[in-house]
Amino acid sequence: MKFSKSTDLAIHGLWQLATKGPQLLLVSEMASAQKVSETYLAKVFQKLARRGLVKSTRGKKGGFTLARTPEKITMADVVRAIETEEPLYECLGTERGCKGKDTCGLRMLFQDAELKLFNVLEKTSLHDLLGSNGSKDARRAWLP
Amino acid sequence: MKFSKSTDLAIHGLWQLATKGPQLLLVSEMASAQKVSETYLAKVFQKLARRGLVKSTRGKKGGFTLARTPEKITMADVVRAIETEEPLYECLGTERGCKGKDTCGLRMLFQDAELKLFNVLEKTSLHDLLGSNGSKDARRAWLP
Repeated sequence: MKFSKSTDLAIHGLWQLATKGPQLLLVSEMASAQKVSETYLAKVFQKLARRGLVKSTRGKKGGFTLARTPEKITMADVVRAIETEEPLYECLGTERGCKGKDTCGLRMLFQDAELKLFNVLEKTSLHDLLGSNGSKDARRAWLP
Repeated sequence: MKFSKSTDLAIHGLWQLATKGPQLLLVSEMASAQKVSETYLAKVFQKLARRGLVKSTRGKKGGFTLARTPEKITMADVVRAIETEEPLYECLGTERGCKGKDTCGLRMLFQDAELKLFNVLEKTSLHDLLGSNGSKDARRAWLP
């Protein structure tokens, strides 16, 4: 069980946009800073755009900006945009003829665990991360 | 991000053992009840045995039993035995020359989120699940 590399790239891409303010950034610029392929990062940003976290401007001077202020983008928003919407735990009981799906204690337990995880991620915005010491260090180290 | 099918099979296999008390169960019996391949389930049970959650007896009348009472097997134990020990979120910053790894706010945030998830799983034992209504329904539905 692990968050995908795309989630990491999405967070760091959004971070780059947040530090640029209203200035547009090309996927190529972000990909170069993150040392990943432009095609890969473009797919990640398409997901973020679909969920209304970034907006793209086409044309010669096109690129991406944040669609909301950094205060209004939480880490839970990013994870939900990138990872699948499927629950963390899926019981395969139904395939085995289980009829207790709706009242299953096991299912409820994992739903609760997932909720607690997302509660933490919902409480931290992109803005909060920019303000943390660690984040600033990290940004200095590799952002353009 | 998702727990693997193995985790689901492990929990249900342990559940079967718990309902059998000290009686041994063959992997073939559990596999048949869970409608999965014996080879697959045997690998899952090898992981559980390595982590001291079950013990195996070889020979003609061999099989598996719980190595601890159901009260002493938490859902966190099972997840840790089956899923990798890697953190839920890994920042790829180091590959990109980031020097802020140890003080990174992002890293700490995801560690905290993971901790909250495991806190829930640690509070529920196999015994608790057996006692829940939903679990009993589920057990009735497909366990042997």
